[in-house]
Amino acid sequence: MQEKDISIAVIKRLPRYYRYLGELLENDVVRISSKELSEKMKVTASQIRQDLNNFGGFGQQGYGYNVEYLYEEIGKILGLDKQYNVIIIGAGNLGQALANYIDFERRGFFVKAIFDVNPRLEGISIRGVEIQMIEYLEEFVKSNTIHIAALTVPKLKAPAAAKELVNLGIKAIWNFAPTDLNLPPDVLVENVHLAESLMTLSYRLKEIDDAELEGTEE
Amino acid sequence: MQEKDISIAVIKRLPRYYRYLGELLENDVVRISSKELSEKMKVTASQIRQDLNNFGGFGQQGYGYNVEYLYEEIGKILGLDKQYNVIIIGAGNLGQALANYIDFERRGFFVKAIFDVNPRLEGISIRGVEIQMIEYLEEFVKSNTIHIAALTVPKLKAPAAAKELVNLGIKAIWNFAPTDLNLPPDVLVENVHLAESLMTLSYRLKEIDDAELEGTEE
Repeated sequence: MQEKDISIAVIKRLPRYYRYLGELLENDVVRISSKELSEKMKVTASQIRQDLNNFGGFGQQGYGYNVEYLYEEIGKILGLDKQYNVIIIGAGNLGQALANYIDFERRGFFVKAIFDVNPRLEGISIRGVEIQMIEYLEEFVKSNTIHIAALTVPKLKAPAAAKELVNLGIKAIWNFAPTDLNLPPDVLVENVHLAESLMTLSYRLKEIDDAELEGTEE
Repeated sequence: MQEKDISIAVIKRLPRYYRYLGELLENDVVRISSKELSEKMKVTASQIRQDLNNFGGFGQQGYGYNVEYLYEEIGKILGLDKQYNVIIIGAGNLGQALANYIDFERRGFFVKAIFDVNPRLEGISIRGVEIQMIEYLEEFVKSNTIHIAALTVPKLKAPAAAKELVNLGIKAIWNFAPTDLNLPPDVLVENVHLAESLMTLSYRLKEIDDAELEGTEE
């Protein structure tokens, strides 16, 4: 259980390694040195060596890293060697975008059902998955193993929807509603707060503006 | 220019303060103590006091914080007292979801145009903004002040699209393509890597599974 001591900072960097290694694999790259990987990823080579040493170090002196092996090992660490069944609550544009995102499937995340309250969406199929009315949610979750629920409903509806999902036994919620969900501590919540991401852009734009203004004043 | 020394960690927490204060305002809350705010936000009261002291401290002993004042001050720090003109490149589900997101407008981000290559989308209007063909991008950017471009095109098309945007003078890119853009250092890039967010969920689900397995072994 060597993995247990890995810092959150390293864990957060793993998906990015995974993405880069996946791109190398797609381009038929068999091996790569930490130096080359560092140039591609704009991280220092020593950081790469340190990060990957956490997992027993997959590199060999003078050879570098075996791309496929490293990709698969990091995938296992991230739990991507398993299949996750996902349902999407909210079939608006965002919910449909998630359902259409083929990349998720490649990583083991399979959209099993999409639910909405809007009868005009009923029966519309997105990549083979039909949009169902929310009344069928309970029955569906009880008769299928669902690991993750993506929540793309409006902010005001999100807390009640999340609570219902938790009552039905869902243990992981991927929340896109711009609000924090107050759920029991054993429920995993991963938030994607788009407005907050956009605000960091405006903050940085403002900083540049301020710096330029200061420049002209001098 | 007191703001200049504020740590990135504090800056990253500001949008969340801003969101909570906005919700308080909507509920007509006039003032709040750091203790109450701390209970709501699940952050320690001392962290809140420390964070807000960075900006001169908006609180008064025995009174707490004036919600509206604090909301507006944080908004200014985040640059939200200005208007940002946004264009969206890629009018798929995700691009349309962004264009439909009224919350952005409330914060000063106005979608001015949406571009795509798919002729079937031409002329479709999203909240009054027509989807235009990508051929019109150059003319549009040259005759309008655009602060931010949201990039929701497929991964393989993103690098070229980003480069074109930068050539046209765009200084901030909100990137949803699952790839890192290699752009000049004076261009701001804010990435939203959805697959990576999803992977942190699978990592945490796997950790719980592992812990439970260990439990049963004992």
